[in-house]
Amino acid sequence: MKPLSATEALAAIDTGTLTSERLVRDCLDRITERDPVVKAWVHLNPDLALAQARAADATKGGLLRGIPVGVKDIIDTYDMPTGHNSPIFEGTQPFGDAACVALCRTANAVILGKTVTTEFANRHPGPTTNPHNPAHTPGGSSSGSAAAVADGHVPLAFGTQTGGSVIRPAAYCGVIGYKPTFGDFSRVGIKMQCHSVDTLGLMARTLDDIALFRAAMLKLPPVAIDRGGSAPRIGFLRTPIWDEAEPDTKALLEDVAKKLGAKDVSFTPAFKDILDDHAAITGWESLRNYADERLRNPDKVSAELMAGMKRSEAITLDRYVAAQRKTVAFKAFIDALFDSVDVLLCPSAPGEAPKGVEYTGDPRFNSIWTLAGTPCVTLPVGTGDMGLPLGIQLVGLRHADDRLLSTAAWIAARSI
Amino acid sequence: MKPLSATEALAAIDTGTLTSERLVRDCLDRITERDPVVKAWVHLNPDLALAQARAADATKGGLLRGIPVGVKDIIDTYDMPTGHNSPIFEGTQPFGDAACVALCRTANAVILGKTVTTEFANRHPGPTTNPHNPAHTPGGSSSGSAAAVADGHVPLAFGTQTGGSVIRPAAYCGVIGYKPTFGDFSRVGIKMQCHSVDTLGLMARTLDDIALFRAAMLKLPPVAIDRGGSAPRIGFLRTPIWDEAEPDTKALLEDVAKKLGAKDVSFTPAFKDILDDHAAITGWESLRNYADERLRNPDKVSAELMAGMKRSEAITLDRYVAAQRKTVAFKAFIDALFDSVDVLLCPSAPGEAPKGVEYTGDPRFNSIWTLAGTPCVTLPVGTGDMGLPLGIQLVGLRHADDRLLSTAAWIAARSI
Repeated sequence: MKPLSATEALAAIDTGTLTSERLVRDCLDRITERDPVVKAWVHLNPDLALAQARAADATKGGLLRGIPVGVKDIIDTYDMPTGHNSPIFEGTQPFGDAACVALCRTANAVILGKTVTTEFANRHPGPTTNPHNPAHTPGGSSSGSAAAVADGHVPLAFGTQTGGSVIRPAAYCGVIGYKPTFGDFSRVGIKMQCHSVDTLGLMARTLDDIALFRAAMLKLPPVAIDRGGSAPRIGFLRTPIWDEAEPDTKALLEDVAKKLGAKDVSFTPAFKDILDDHAAITGWESLRNYADERLRNPDKVSAELMAGMKRSEAITLDRYVAAQRKTVAFKAFIDALFDSVDVLLCPSAPGEAPKGVEYTGDPRFNSIWTLAGTPCVTLPVGTGDMGLPLGIQLVGLRHADDRLLSTAAWIAARSI
Repeated sequence: MKPLSATEALAAIDTGTLTSERLVRDCLDRITERDPVVKAWVHLNPDLALAQARAADATKGGLLRGIPVGVKDIIDTYDMPTGHNSPIFEGTQPFGDAACVALCRTANAVILGKTVTTEFANRHPGPTTNPHNPAHTPGGSSSGSAAAVADGHVPLAFGTQTGGSVIRPAAYCGVIGYKPTFGDFSRVGIKMQCHSVDTLGLMARTLDDIALFRAAMLKLPPVAIDRGGSAPRIGFLRTPIWDEAEPDTKALLEDVAKKLGAKDVSFTPAFKDILDDHAAITGWESLRNYADERLRNPDKVSAELMAGMKRSEAITLDRYVAAQRKTVAFKAFIDALFDSVDVLLCPSAPGEAPKGVEYTGDPRFNSIWTLAGTPCVTLPVGTGDMGLPLGIQLVGLRHADDRLLSTAAWIAARSI
């Protein structure tokens, strides 16, 4: 049976045909059945989850009344360990909840458990597999959240994105991923990698669920998806790394662009190397943000993260400053693109999820937009040559997230 | 005897006439003598401090080899409690060090202890008094750091600024306060209030010490203050709230501006209400960033912070977005001002430190620049009508912090 979306579950709860306890038991059953293969969860406490569900059933009310949520394990929870997929933090339990978790609880959600992350949301992978084929990666760094939502373990889950850690795993697993405008969602209690770009994102199986979840994060009434709008002006942006996309992804994008009457849009030459600026900023910042781990526990940091930080020592302050200044200009350039289009269409990833779980895939089709601070949505649209999901990435004007979600619904109705 | 600056102490340590242990003992003696009145410290562990000092004496090396540093008590320390001046956190000890503390330890500094903050670096005050007159506030929220540096307890201390929490207390206590370009310093492990503006800042008694401390935070070799430069082009910016400055402060600024040949600069009308945008952004963000405290411990949050958050519930998403967009334009406007000037001169605070310790003073002469993300320095220049210190605030171009410190030295040589 197709698992319920959060929006469907809420309707059933409100009419009395479903309880949160029943919903959570169904999720736990599904996890018991499937997680030996998918390995999406690093911490689950069924008793605690069911106690929250019964409390939600008793109190009713709240935007997410009784809906279970998966929490990426770099996000603090006061009642569960937060391990960051690092031996440094193994078994440690934070003093408080991250703000995003507290906002879920404020909305009467059930915090179901913690989902697998790569080490510190960086590269070193966890054990999670792609629910569509366990020989493939689910993507990273929000590996467990994407896999859990795709596999019907939970309707909603948190991811975070520094490069492509929300949009890419969502695309690889065939779910909807959403990265809001930079700054809209609180990052309190989320392990920081790079303060200029790190963004909390959301995963779900429907756009209505994304809109609902977003409202809980903003502590505001939900803005319903507008499905009655007129045709958006769509810009097809291949990006400067188009040649790195797989043939099936290129063909999908060209096909969708043609079908939707998108017009070609491109970066000016000044920004063709903007990914180098993303790399300079993230390299500079992460090197300093991990000062405590480097000083007190270097032996417990993965070799690949240590090597990456070693390379980052070559980034000068002048290079960092130049990248920051260029980013200001880049954001202005992107803002101006939206004078003539309502949404940009581009790949969510170079292709399908790569084989193996050691390499979580290339984030660079996403890093462009993490740097730009724009809202992004990935929609699952068909499958690739290996039969795994492909996605299209939709990019909106900064601070116009509600509009992007409605535009995405318009496009989804015509592409999927 | 005038207490040594960090730079002077390092020279003495390097020539063998001083040890870190001796320096730390002198600091602890001064604290024992004075802190019953000044009340700058919330946590001190002399044995731990002396053990660090002896270790620094043994290992030598490092940019801050053996120099003691005071840490504002919203900044995590793995070996000392971090209380945030809140009963919620009283006695809690974080798992790790904030990145800025780890960077101090990486530079072989001694973490002397935790300095008093207002509740969560907001308004509700701690017990600290102004070292120049205990009947007056030291300012806030970095109350203890400013008082401790001013009173010779420690040469270097951390503050943080969301409104005016570094520059204002530094000015009230007669020390040098420095807020770097937004984004330059890591905020990992620092309790977040408002992510769009919160900035880690530094306090010291000399500009050379600020340059040294800054280098440790950037994990780079220090850039020496350049005292041989030509006269800077100085813009005298009274700001839209000039009328709120006290007569002694106005007279001081006019006098300094005249002496230095500053030319008048002003905001265009579009930005005369920019402080309302600062208030919208900080109100919106703090309401959500404190979601955990509001949900689980509302009874332990001060009445004034709860009332402030209650008021912030009236800020709509549209208002927040409008403020963010206006800030983008404001930053561009400020950047452009620096085409014709090298530095802006304006008040550090409306006047001297107010009487009493309940009210830590008005931050708004600083909030403008916290929003702008510009580097700022306050220099102590004379005293006001009550005999307490006055400061002048110098504002530089974003990402040109080294130049601002050298310009400040040029101005200090001609104003103080």
